[in-house]
Amino acid sequence: MSRVSICPVEVHFGDCDPAGIVFFPNFSRWMDAASHHFFRSAGLPPWHSLAEIPHCIGNPLLEIHTRFLMPATYGERLEVHTSVDEWRRKVFIQRHRILRGGVLLCEGVETRALCVKPPGEPLKSIAIPDWLRERVS
Amino acid sequence: MSRVSICPVEVHFGDCDPAGIVFFPNFSRWMDAASHHFFRSAGLPPWHSLAEIPHCIGNPLLEIHTRFLMPATYGERLEVHTSVDEWRRKVFIQRHRILRGGVLLCEGVETRALCVKPPGEPLKSIAIPDWLRERVS
Amino acid sequence: MSRVSICPVEVHFGDCDPAGIVFFPNFSRWMDAASHHFFRSAGLPPWHSLAEIPHCIGNPLLEIHTRFLMPATYGERLEVHTSVDEWRRKVFIQRHRILRGGVLLCEGVETRALCVKPPGEPLKSIAIPDWLRERVS
Amino acid sequence: MSRVSICPVEVHFGDCDPAGIVFFPNFSRWMDAASHHFFRSAGLPPWHSLAEIPHCIGNPLLEIHTRFLMPATYGERLEVHTSVDEWRRKVFIQRHRILRGGVLLCEGVETRALCVKPPGEPLKSIAIPDWLRERVS
Repeated sequence: MSRVSICPVEVHFGDCDPAGIVFFPNFSRWMDAASHHFFRSAGLPPWHSLAEIPHCIGNPLLEIHTRFLMPATYGERLEVHTSVDEWRRKVFIQRHRILRGGVLLCEGVETRALCVKPPGEPLKSIAIPDWLRERVS
Repeated sequence: MSRVSICPVEVHFGDCDPAGIVFFPNFSRWMDAASHHFFRSAGLPPWHSLAEIPHCIGNPLLEIHTRFLMPATYGERLEVHTSVDEWRRKVFIQRHRILRGGVLLCEGVETRALCVKPPGEPLKSIAIPDWLRERVS
Repeated sequence: MSRVSICPVEVHFGDCDPAGIVFFPNFSRWMDAASHHFFRSAGLPPWHSLAEIPHCIGNPLLEIHTRFLMPATYGERLEVHTSVDEWRRKVFIQRHRILRGGVLLCEGVETRALCVKPPGEPLKSIAIPDWLRERVS
Repeated sequence: MSRVSICPVEVHFGDCDPAGIVFFPNFSRWMDAASHHFFRSAGLPPWHSLAEIPHCIGNPLLEIHTRFLMPATYGERLEVHTSVDEWRRKVFIQRHRILRGGVLLCEGVETRALCVKPPGEPLKSIAIPDWLRERVS
Protein backbone atom coordinates (compact mmCIF):
# COMPACT_ATOMS: atom_id res chain seq x y z
CA MET A 1 0.00 0.00 0.00
CA SER A 2 1.11 3.52 -0.78
CA ARG A 3 2.19 6.11 1.71
CA VAL A 4 -0.50 8.79 2.13
CA SER A 5 0.50 12.44 2.52
CA ILE A 6 -1.91 15.02 3.89
CA CYS A 7 -1.75 18.56 2.52
CA PRO A 8 -3.84 21.25 4.23
CA VAL A 9 -5.77 23.76 2.12
CA GLU A 10 -7.58 26.88 3.25
CA VAL A 11 -10.34 27.96 0.87
CA HIS A 12 -10.00 31.65 0.05
CA PHE A 13 -12.65 34.15 -1.09
CA GLY A 14 -10.96 34.45 -4.48
CA ASP A 15 -11.13 30.67 -5.00
CA CYS A 16 -14.93 30.89 -5.11
CA ASP A 17 -17.24 31.85 -7.97
CA PRO A 18 -20.51 33.82 -8.22
CA ALA A 19 -22.37 30.76 -6.90
CA GLY A 20 -20.34 31.19 -3.70
CA ILE A 21 -18.59 27.83 -4.11
CA VAL A 22 -15.07 26.80 -5.13
CA PHE A 23 -14.52 27.30 -8.87
CA PHE A 24 -13.67 23.73 -9.90
CA PRO A 25 -10.25 24.27 -11.59
CA ASN A 26 -8.99 25.29 -8.15
CA PHE A 27 -9.51 21.70 -7.01
CA SER A 28 -7.11 20.67 -9.79
CA ARG A 29 -4.69 23.38 -8.67
CA TRP A 30 -4.77 22.05 -5.11
CA MET A 31 -4.26 18.49 -6.33
CA ASP A 32 -1.16 19.66 -8.19
CA ALA A 33 0.15 21.33 -5.04
CA ALA A 34 -0.62 18.10 -3.14
CA SER A 35 1.30 16.09 -5.73
CA HIS A 36 4.38 18.22 -5.04
CA HIS A 37 3.69 17.96 -1.29
CA PHE A 38 3.61 14.14 -1.57
CA PHE A 39 7.21 14.13 -2.82
CA ARG A 40 8.42 16.97 -0.58
CA SER A 41 7.01 15.31 2.54
CA ALA A 42 9.16 12.25 1.75
CA GLY A 43 12.23 14.46 1.98
CA LEU A 44 12.78 15.32 -1.68
CA PRO A 45 13.69 18.90 -2.71
CA PRO A 46 11.56 20.90 -5.16
CA TRP A 47 11.92 19.45 -8.69
CA HIS A 48 14.03 22.41 -9.88
CA SER A 49 16.75 21.55 -7.36
CA LEU A 50 16.73 17.74 -7.60
CA ALA A 51 20.44 17.18 -8.29
CA GLU A 52 20.01 13.52 -9.31
CA ILE A 53 17.75 14.44 -12.25
CA PRO A 54 19.16 17.55 -13.97
CA HIS A 55 16.62 19.85 -15.66
CA CYS A 56 13.71 18.00 -14.03
CA ILE A 57 10.49 20.00 -14.38
CA GLY A 58 8.30 17.62 -12.42
CA ASN A 59 5.40 15.46 -13.50
CA PRO A 60 3.16 16.90 -16.21
CA LEU A 61 -0.32 15.42 -16.48
CA LEU A 62 -1.36 12.99 -19.19
CA GLU A 63 -4.88 12.46 -17.90
CA ILE A 64 -7.13 13.48 -15.01
CA HIS A 65 -10.45 12.05 -13.86
CA THR A 66 -12.15 13.98 -11.09
CA ARG A 67 -15.51 13.62 -9.35
CA PHE A 68 -17.02 16.55 -7.44
CA LEU A 69 -19.31 15.25 -4.68
CA MET A 70 -19.91 18.23 -2.41
CA PRO A 71 -19.16 21.96 -2.76
CA ALA A 72 -16.86 23.95 -0.48
CA THR A 73 -16.76 27.66 0.30
CA TYR A 74 -14.35 30.24 1.69
CA GLY A 75 -13.28 30.17 5.30
CA GLU A 76 -13.25 26.35 5.26
CA ARG A 77 -10.21 24.18 5.88
CA LEU A 78 -9.77 21.12 3.67
CA GLU A 79 -7.26 18.30 3.50
CA VAL A 80 -5.88 16.64 0.38
CA HIS A 81 -4.96 12.99 1.02
CA THR A 82 -2.53 11.88 -1.67
CA SER A 83 -1.19 8.44 -2.58
CA VAL A 84 0.12 6.52 -5.58
CA ASP A 85 -2.10 3.76 -6.97
CA GLU A 86 0.42 2.39 -9.44
CA TRP A 87 3.96 2.89 -10.72
CA ARG A 88 4.79 2.12 -14.36
CA ARG A 89 8.08 2.66 -16.19
CA LYS A 90 7.65 6.32 -17.16
CA VAL A 91 4.26 7.01 -15.67
CA PHE A 92 2.50 6.82 -12.31
CA ILE A 93 -1.11 7.06 -11.15
CA GLN A 94 -1.67 9.46 -8.30
CA ARG A 95 -4.92 9.69 -6.30
CA HIS A 96 -6.08 12.76 -4.38
CA ARG A 97 -9.01 12.75 -1.97
CA ILE A 98 -10.14 16.18 -0.75
CA LEU A 99 -11.93 16.06 2.60
CA ARG A 100 -13.57 18.52 4.97
CA GLY A 101 -13.91 17.23 8.51
CA GLY A 102 -13.63 13.65 7.31
CA VAL A 103 -16.25 14.07 4.54
CA LEU A 104 -15.09 13.41 0.98
CA LEU A 105 -15.77 16.45 -1.25
CA CYS A 106 -13.81 15.61 -4.35
CA GLU A 107 -11.69 12.76 -5.67
CA GLY A 108 -9.20 12.87 -8.51
CA VAL A 109 -7.05 10.30 -10.25
CA GLU A 110 -4.12 11.60 -12.27
CA THR A 111 -1.75 9.98 -14.76
CA ARG A 112 1.62 11.74 -14.55
CA ALA A 113 4.90 11.39 -16.47
CA LEU A 114 8.31 12.31 -15.03
CA CYS A 115 9.84 14.88 -17.40
CA VAL A 116 13.00 16.87 -18.02
CA LYS A 117 13.57 19.92 -20.19
CA PRO A 118 17.24 20.60 -20.94
CA PRO A 119 17.87 24.17 -22.21
CA GLY A 120 17.04 24.51 -25.88
CA GLU A 121 15.51 21.03 -26.08
CA PRO A 122 11.86 20.03 -25.99
CA LEU A 123 10.21 18.54 -22.93
CA LYS A 124 10.69 14.76 -22.72
CA SER A 125 9.60 11.99 -20.37
CA ILE A 126 12.17 9.75 -18.68
CA ALA A 127 12.09 6.43 -16.86
CA ILE A 128 11.23 6.78 -13.18
CA PRO A 129 14.38 5.85 -11.21
CA ASP A 130 13.95 3.02 -8.70
CA TRP A 131 15.43 5.18 -5.91
CA LEU A 132 12.78 7.84 -6.48
CA ARG A 133 9.89 5.36 -6.31
CA GLU A 134 11.35 3.66 -3.24
CA ARG A 135 12.06 6.89 -1.43
CA VAL A 136 8.47 8.15 -1.60
CA SER A 137 6.63 4.82 -1.17
CA MET B 1 -25.77 15.35 -33.67
CA SER B 2 -24.99 18.28 -31.42
CA ARG B 3 -24.26 21.79 -32.50
CA VAL B 4 -20.53 22.59 -32.13
CA SER B 5 -19.46 26.02 -30.89
CA ILE B 6 -15.90 27.29 -31.37
CA CYS B 7 -14.38 29.47 -28.68
CA PRO B 8 -10.99 31.11 -29.39
CA VAL B 9 -8.32 31.15 -26.69
CA GLU B 10 -5.04 33.04 -26.66
CA VAL B 11 -2.42 31.46 -24.40
CA HIS B 12 -0.89 34.08 -22.12
CA PHE B 13 2.51 34.14 -20.41
CA GLY B 14 0.82 33.85 -17.00
CA ASP B 15 -1.05 30.71 -18.08
CA CYS B 16 2.28 28.88 -18.35
CA ASP B 17 4.38 27.25 -15.65
CA PRO B 18 8.14 26.95 -15.02
CA ALA B 19 8.29 24.21 -17.67
CA GLY B 20 7.18 26.88 -20.14
CA ILE B 21 3.90 25.09 -20.93
CA VAL B 22 0.26 25.71 -20.00
CA PHE B 23 -0.39 24.86 -16.34
CA PHE B 24 -3.08 22.18 -16.75
CA PRO B 25 -5.89 23.67 -14.59
CA ASN B 26 -6.01 26.49 -17.15
CA PHE B 27 -7.30 23.98 -19.71
CA SER B 28 -10.21 23.31 -17.30
CA ARG B 29 -10.73 27.06 -16.92
CA TRP B 30 -10.91 27.46 -20.72
CA MET B 31 -13.34 24.54 -20.99
CA ASP B 32 -15.58 26.26 -18.45
CA ALA B 33 -15.45 29.48 -20.49
CA ALA B 34 -16.24 27.42 -23.60
CA SER B 35 -19.23 25.86 -21.84
CA HIS B 36 -20.66 29.33 -21.24
CA HIS B 37 -19.76 30.28 -24.82
CA PHE B 38 -21.70 27.26 -26.13
CA PHE B 39 -24.90 28.60 -24.58
CA ARG B 40 -24.21 32.28 -25.31
CA SER B 41 -23.48 31.58 -28.98
CA ALA B 42 -26.99 30.06 -29.25
CA GLY B 43 -28.42 33.41 -28.19
CA LEU B 44 -28.87 32.85 -24.46
CA PRO B 45 -27.93 35.59 -21.97
CA PRO B 46 -25.36 35.01 -19.19
CA TRP B 47 -26.83 32.69 -16.53
CA HIS B 48 -27.24 35.52 -14.01
CA SER B 49 -29.69 37.29 -16.31
CA LEU B 50 -31.68 34.33 -17.64
CA ALA B 51 -35.19 35.54 -16.78
CA GLU B 52 -36.85 32.15 -17.39
CA ILE B 53 -34.79 30.48 -14.63
CA PRO B 54 -34.58 32.86 -11.65
CA HIS B 55 -31.44 32.59 -9.49
CA CYS B 56 -29.74 30.35 -12.05
CA ILE B 57 -26.02 30.06 -11.32
CA GLY B 58 -25.16 27.92 -14.32
CA ASN B 59 -23.95 24.34 -14.56
CA PRO B 60 -21.62 23.18 -11.80
CA LEU B 61 -19.47 20.17 -12.54
CA LEU B 62 -20.18 16.70 -11.20
CA GLU B 63 -17.31 15.01 -13.00
CA ILE B 64 -14.53 15.77 -15.47
CA HIS B 65 -12.34 13.44 -17.49
CA THR B 66 -9.55 15.14 -19.43
CA ARG B 67 -6.68 13.85 -21.56
CA PHE B 68 -3.66 16.02 -22.28
CA LEU B 69 -2.08 14.99 -25.59
CA MET B 70 0.25 17.85 -26.49
CA PRO B 71 1.51 20.90 -24.58
CA ALA B 72 0.86 24.52 -25.57
CA THR B 73 2.79 27.68 -24.78
CA TYR B 74 2.26 31.43 -24.72
CA GLY B 75 1.74 33.39 -27.88
CA GLU B 76 -0.27 30.52 -29.38
CA ARG B 77 -3.90 30.69 -30.47
CA LEU B 78 -6.10 27.73 -29.66
CA GLU B 79 -9.73 26.83 -30.33
CA VAL B 80 -12.12 25.03 -28.00
CA HIS B 81 -14.71 23.01 -29.94
CA THR B 82 -17.68 22.33 -27.66
CA SER B 83 -20.70 20.08 -28.08
CA VAL B 84 -23.18 18.09 -25.98
CA ASP B 85 -22.87 14.31 -26.10
CA GLU B 86 -26.01 13.55 -24.10
CA TRP B 87 -28.90 15.25 -22.33
CA ARG B 88 -30.43 13.62 -19.23
CA ARG B 89 -33.20 14.99 -16.97
CA LYS B 90 -31.03 17.13 -14.66
CA VAL B 91 -27.61 16.52 -16.14
CA PHE B 92 -25.83 16.82 -19.46
CA ILE B 93 -22.50 15.61 -20.84
CA GLN B 94 -20.44 18.28 -22.53
CA ARG B 95 -17.33 17.58 -24.64
CA HIS B 96 -14.53 20.07 -25.29
CA ARG B 97 -11.75 19.52 -27.82
CA ILE B 98 -8.89 22.01 -27.68
CA LEU B 99 -7.03 22.36 -30.97
CA ARG B 100 -4.07 24.32 -32.33
CA GLY B 101 -4.05 24.62 -36.10
CA GLY B 102 -6.29 21.57 -36.41
CA VAL B 103 -4.18 19.41 -34.06
CA LEU B 104 -5.92 18.08 -30.95
CA LEU B 105 -4.03 19.11 -27.79
CA CYS B 106 -6.51 18.24 -25.08
CA GLU B 107 -9.94 16.65 -24.79
CA GLY B 108 -12.32 16.86 -21.85
CA VAL B 109 -15.69 15.33 -21.07
CA GLU B 110 -17.74 17.02 -18.36
CA THR B 111 -20.88 16.02 -16.48
CA ARG B 112 -22.80 19.18 -15.56
CA ALA B 113 -26.00 19.82 -13.57
CA LEU B 114 -28.24 22.87 -14.09
CA CYS B 115 -28.48 24.63 -10.73
CA VAL B 116 -30.21 27.52 -8.98
CA LYS B 117 -29.35 29.24 -5.73
CA PRO B 118 -32.19 31.37 -4.31
CA PRO B 119 -31.01 33.86 -1.65
CA GLY B 120 -30.60 32.21 1.73
CA GLU B 121 -31.14 28.71 0.31
CA PRO B 122 -28.55 26.09 -0.62
CA LEU B 123 -27.57 25.36 -4.20
CA LYS B 124 -29.91 22.83 -5.85
CA SER B 125 -30.14 21.14 -9.23
CA ILE B 126 -33.28 21.45 -11.35
CA ALA B 127 -34.70 19.63 -14.36
CA ILE B 128 -33.36 20.94 -17.66
CA PRO B 129 -36.26 22.68 -19.44
CA ASP B 130 -37.07 21.34 -22.93
CA TRP B 131 -36.87 24.85 -24.40
CA LEU B 132 -33.31 25.26 -23.12
CA ARG B 133 -32.15 21.97 -24.62
CA GLU B 134 -33.88 22.68 -27.92
CA ARG B 135 -32.61 26.21 -28.18
CA VAL B 136 -28.94 25.25 -27.95
CA SER B 137 -29.05 21.96 -29.89
CA MET C 1 -0.41 51.08 16.25
CA SER C 2 -2.27 48.40 14.36
CA ARG C 3 -2.39 44.75 15.24
CA VAL C 4 -0.27 42.72 12.78
CA SER C 5 -1.50 39.32 11.58
CA ILE C 6 0.83 36.80 9.98
CA CYS C 7 -0.51 34.58 7.22
CA PRO C 8 1.71 31.76 5.94
CA VAL C 9 1.93 31.09 2.20
CA GLU C 10 3.56 28.17 0.44
CA VAL C 11 4.61 28.97 -3.13
CA HIS C 12 3.36 26.28 -5.51
CA PHE C 13 4.69 25.22 -8.91
CA GLY C 14 1.55 26.52 -10.59
CA ASP C 15 2.02 29.97 -9.02
CA CYS C 16 5.20 30.42 -11.07
CA ASP C 17 5.62 31.52 -14.67
CA PRO C 18 8.01 30.51 -17.49
CA ALA C 19 10.73 32.65 -15.85
CA GLY C 20 10.48 30.25 -12.89
CA ILE C 21 9.29 32.99 -10.52
CA VAL C 22 5.94 33.85 -8.97
CA PHE C 23 3.56 35.36 -11.53
CA PHE C 24 2.87 38.76 -9.93
CA PRO C 25 -0.96 38.69 -9.73
CA ASN C 26 -0.52 35.80 -7.28
CA PHE C 27 1.03 38.25 -4.82
CA SER C 28 -2.24 40.23 -5.02
CA ARG C 29 -4.19 37.00 -4.52
CA TRP C 30 -2.17 36.22 -1.38
CA MET C 31 -2.65 39.75 -0.07
CA ASP C 32 -6.40 39.29 -0.48
CA ALA C 33 -6.26 36.03 1.45
CA ALA C 34 -4.17 37.81 4.11
CA SER C 35 -6.78 40.57 4.34
CA HIS C 36 -9.42 37.95 5.19
CA HIS C 37 -6.95 36.28 7.57
CA PHE C 38 -6.43 39.61 9.38
CA PHE C 39 -10.13 39.73 10.29
CA ARG C 40 -10.51 35.99 10.89
CA SER C 41 -7.53 35.92 13.25
CA ALA C 42 -9.29 38.57 15.38
CA GLY C 43 -12.16 36.14 15.87
CA LEU C 44 -14.54 37.28 13.13
CA PRO C 45 -16.37 34.72 10.97
CA PRO C 46 -16.05 34.69 7.16
CA TRP C 47 -17.87 37.71 5.68
CA HIS C 48 -20.72 35.58 4.31
CA SER C 49 -21.69 34.53 7.84
CA LEU C 50 -21.20 37.81 9.69
CA ALA C 51 -24.65 38.10 11.33
CA GLU C 52 -24.21 41.75 12.37
CA ILE C 53 -23.84 42.89 8.73
CA PRO C 54 -26.36 41.00 6.58
CA HIS C 55 -25.36 40.39 2.94
CA CYS C 56 -21.80 41.50 3.64
CA ILE C 57 -19.49 40.53 0.75
CA GLY C 58 -16.28 41.79 2.31
CA ASN C 59 -13.98 44.61 1.29
CA PRO C 60 -13.59 45.21 -2.43
CA LEU C 61 -10.51 47.11 -3.53
CA LEU C 62 -10.58 50.74 -4.61
CA GLU C 63 -6.83 51.02 -5.15
CA ILE C 64 -3.64 48.99 -4.81
CA HIS C 65 -0.03 50.07 -4.86
CA THR C 66 2.50 47.24 -4.82
CA ARG C 67 6.28 47.13 -5.05
CA PHE C 68 8.07 43.92 -6.04
CA LEU C 69 11.58 43.88 -4.55
CA MET C 70 12.72 40.27 -4.88
CA PRO C 71 11.34 37.26 -6.76
CA ALA C 72 10.17 34.03 -5.11
CA THR C 73 9.92 30.51 -6.50
CA TYR C 74 8.12 27.27 -5.74
CA GLY C 75 8.97 25.21 -2.69
CA GLU C 76 9.50 28.40 -0.66
CA ARG C 77 7.53 29.42 2.42
CA LEU C 78 6.56 33.06 2.74
CA GLU C 79 4.74 35.12 5.35
CA VAL C 80 2.29 37.94 4.75
CA HIS C 81 2.38 40.50 7.58
CA THR C 82 -0.86 42.49 7.52
CA SER C 83 -1.92 45.61 9.37
CA VAL C 84 -4.23 48.62 8.98
CA ASP C 85 -2.56 52.00 8.40
CA GLU C 86 -5.71 54.07 8.65
CA TRP C 87 -9.46 53.79 9.24
CA ARG C 88 -11.83 56.25 7.54
CA ARG C 89 -15.64 56.27 7.61
CA LYS C 90 -16.30 53.81 4.77
CA VAL C 91 -12.76 52.96 3.76
CA PHE C 92 -9.58 51.60 5.33
CA ILE C 93 -5.96 51.34 4.23
CA GLN C 94 -4.46 47.90 4.64
CA ARG C 95 -0.74 47.15 4.32
CA HIS C 96 0.74 43.74 3.45
CA ARG C 97 4.43 42.92 3.67
CA ILE C 98 5.47 39.60 2.15
CA LEU C 99 8.66 38.18 3.64
CA ARG C 100 10.85 35.12 3.17
CA GLY C 101 13.06 34.36 6.13
CA GLY C 102 12.78 37.94 7.35
CA VAL C 103 13.62 39.46 3.95
CA LEU C 104 10.99 41.73 2.40
CA LEU C 105 10.02 40.50 -1.09
CA CYS C 106 6.95 42.56 -1.84
CA GLU C 107 4.93 45.29 -0.17
CA GLY C 108 1.39 46.35 -1.00
CA VAL C 109 -0.91 49.08 0.23
CA GLU C 110 -4.60 48.61 -0.44
CA THR C 111 -7.61 50.94 -0.12
CA ARG C 112 -10.67 48.84 0.72
CA ALA C 113 -14.38 49.65 1.19
CA LEU C 114 -16.74 47.59 3.35
CA CYS C 115 -19.61 46.48 1.08
CA VAL C 116 -22.94 44.67 1.14
CA LYS C 117 -24.94 43.20 -1.71
CA PRO C 118 -28.57 42.49 -0.81
CA PRO C 119 -30.29 40.09 -3.28
CA GLY C 120 -31.43 41.90 -6.40
CA GLU C 121 -29.68 45.13 -5.42
CA PRO C 122 -26.33 46.49 -6.61
CA LEU C 123 -23.20 46.34 -4.50
CA LYS C 124 -22.93 49.32 -2.10
CA SER C 125 -20.42 50.52 0.47
CA ILE C 126 -21.46 51.08 4.09
CA ALA C 127 -19.97 52.89 7.07
CA ILE C 128 -17.50 50.75 9.01
CA PRO C 129 -19.10 49.99 12.41
CA ASP C 130 -17.07 51.06 15.44
CA TRP C 131 -17.32 47.57 16.95
CA LEU C 132 -15.73 46.07 13.82
CA ARG C 133 -12.80 48.48 13.86
CA GLU C 134 -12.27 48.03 17.59
CA ARG C 135 -12.50 44.28 17.48
CA VAL C 136 -9.70 43.87 14.93
CA SER C 137 -7.40 46.67 16.10
CA MET D 1 2.97 60.25 -27.79
CA SER D 2 2.94 56.52 -27.41
CA ARG D 3 1.24 54.05 -29.69
CA VAL D 4 -1.89 52.61 -28.03
CA SER D 5 -2.73 48.95 -28.47
CA ILE D 6 -6.22 47.59 -27.75
CA CYS D 7 -6.56 44.10 -26.32
CA PRO D 8 -10.06 42.61 -26.03
CA VAL D 9 -11.04 40.71 -22.88
CA GLU D 10 -14.14 38.62 -22.27
CA VAL D 11 -15.04 38.33 -18.59
CA HIS D 12 -15.66 34.69 -17.66
CA PHE D 13 -17.75 33.21 -14.86
CA GLY D 14 -14.60 31.88 -13.19
CA ASP D 15 -13.03 35.37 -13.15
CA CYS D 16 -15.74 36.52 -10.73
CA ASP D 17 -15.98 36.10 -6.98
CA PRO D 18 -18.85 35.44 -4.54
CA ALA D 19 -19.85 39.12 -4.84
CA GLY D 20 -20.51 38.38 -8.52
CA ILE D 21 -17.82 40.80 -9.70
CA VAL D 22 -14.34 40.34 -11.16
CA PHE D 23 -11.85 39.21 -8.50
CA PHE D 24 -9.33 42.06 -8.67
CA PRO D 25 -6.09 40.11 -9.33
CA ASN D 26 -7.66 39.15 -12.67
CA PHE D 27 -7.41 42.80 -13.72
CA SER D 28 -3.63 42.51 -13.14
CA ARG D 29 -3.60 39.28 -15.12
CA TRP D 30 -5.34 41.00 -18.06
CA MET D 31 -2.94 43.94 -17.86
CA ASP D 32 -0.04 41.51 -18.14
CA ALA D 33 -1.64 39.90 -21.19
CA ALA D 34 -2.17 43.40 -22.61
CA SER D 35 1.51 44.22 -22.02
CA HIS D 36 2.49 41.21 -24.16
CA HIS D 37 -0.18 42.20 -26.71
CA PHE D 38 1.32 45.71 -26.94
CA PHE D 39 4.62 44.25 -28.14
CA ARG D 40 3.09 41.48 -30.27
CA SER D 41 0.79 43.93 -32.08
CA ALA D 42 3.91 45.87 -33.14
CA GLY D 43 5.14 42.75 -34.91
CA LEU D 44 7.43 41.28 -32.26
CA PRO D 45 7.40 37.52 -31.55
CA PRO D 46 6.66 36.12 -28.06
CA TRP D 47 9.58 36.86 -25.72
CA HIS D 48 10.73 33.22 -25.67
CA SER D 49 11.43 33.36 -29.41
CA LEU D 50 12.94 36.83 -29.71
CA ALA D 51 16.20 35.92 -31.47
CA GLU D 52 17.85 39.33 -30.90
CA ILE D 53 17.70 38.91 -27.10
CA PRO D 54 18.59 35.31 -26.22
CA HIS D 55 16.98 33.91 -23.05
CA CYS D 56 14.62 36.86 -22.79
CA ILE D 57 11.83 36.15 -20.32
CA GLY D 58 9.95 39.39 -20.83
CA ASN D 59 9.35 42.31 -18.48
CA PRO D 60 8.89 41.45 -14.82
CA LEU D 61 7.12 44.03 -12.68
CA LEU D 62 8.93 46.29 -10.25
CA GLU D 63 5.85 48.21 -9.19
CA ILE D 64 2.13 48.47 -9.95
CA HIS D 65 -0.38 51.14 -9.02
CA THR D 66 -3.99 50.35 -9.91
CA ARG D 67 -7.28 52.12 -9.28
CA PHE D 68 -10.58 50.22 -9.49
CA LEU D 69 -13.39 52.60 -10.43
CA MET D 70 -16.28 50.34 -11.44
CA PRO D 71 -16.87 46.59 -11.14
CA ALA D 72 -17.38 44.22 -14.08
CA THR D 73 -19.13 40.88 -14.28
CA TYR D 74 -19.20 37.80 -16.49
CA GLY D 75 -20.62 37.94 -19.98
CA GLU D 76 -19.19 41.42 -20.47
CA ARG D 77 -16.62 42.42 -23.09
CA LEU D 78 -13.87 44.79 -22.01
CA GLU D 79 -10.96 46.47 -23.77
CA VAL D 80 -7.48 47.08 -22.39
CA HIS D 81 -5.89 50.20 -23.90
CA THR D 82 -2.13 50.01 -23.42
CA SER D 83 0.61 52.57 -23.97
CA VAL D 84 4.08 53.49 -22.66
CA ASP D 85 4.34 56.67 -20.56
CA GLU D 86 8.13 56.68 -20.32
CA TRP D 87 11.22 54.77 -21.41
CA ARG D 88 14.30 54.71 -19.16
CA ARG D 89 17.55 52.79 -19.68
CA LYS D 90 16.50 49.43 -18.18
CA VAL D 91 12.93 50.23 -17.19
CA PHE D 92 9.72 51.48 -18.78
CA ILE D 93 6.39 52.71 -17.46
CA GLN D 94 3.38 51.06 -19.04
CA ARG D 95 -0.21 52.29 -18.62
CA HIS D 96 -3.32 50.14 -19.02
CA ARG D 97 -6.85 51.53 -19.13
CA ILE D 98 -9.64 48.93 -18.96
CA LEU D 99 -12.90 50.10 -20.51
CA ARG D 100 -16.40 48.76 -21.06
CA GLY D 101 -18.30 50.52 -23.79
CA GLY D 102 -16.07 53.56 -23.48
CA VAL D 103 -16.39 53.77 -19.67
CA LEU D 104 -13.17 53.49 -17.67
CA LEU D 105 -13.41 50.65 -15.11
CA CYS D 106 -9.83 50.31 -13.99
CA GLU D 107 -6.51 52.01 -14.62
CA GLY D 108 -3.06 50.64 -13.87
CA VAL D 109 0.45 52.00 -14.15
CA GLU D 110 3.27 49.47 -14.18
CA THR D 111 7.06 49.78 -13.87
CA ARG D 112 8.66 46.95 -15.85
CA ALA D 113 12.28 45.85 -16.40
CA LEU D 114 13.48 43.95 -19.47
CA CYS D 115 15.07 40.72 -18.21
CA VAL D 116 16.94 37.65 -19.38
CA LYS D 117 17.53 34.36 -17.64
CA PRO D 118 20.35 32.29 -19.19
CA PRO D 119 20.26 28.60 -18.11
CA GLY D 120 21.79 28.10 -14.68
CA GLU D 121 22.10 31.85 -14.06
CA PRO D 122 19.83 34.12 -12.04
CA LEU D 123 17.34 36.48 -13.62
CA LYS D 124 18.94 39.83 -14.57
CA SER D 125 17.75 43.09 -16.11
CA ILE D 126 19.37 44.43 -19.28
CA ALA D 127 19.40 47.78 -21.08
CA ILE D 128 16.43 48.22 -23.41
CA PRO D 129 17.81 48.21 -26.98
CA ASP D 130 17.00 51.28 -29.06
CA TRP D 131 15.59 49.14 -31.87
CA LEU D 132 13.08 47.56 -29.46
CA ARG D 133 11.86 50.91 -28.17
CA GLU D 134 11.63 52.36 -31.68
CA ARG D 135 9.86 49.36 -33.11
CA VAL D 136 6.97 49.46 -30.65
CA SER D 137 6.61 53.25 -30.29
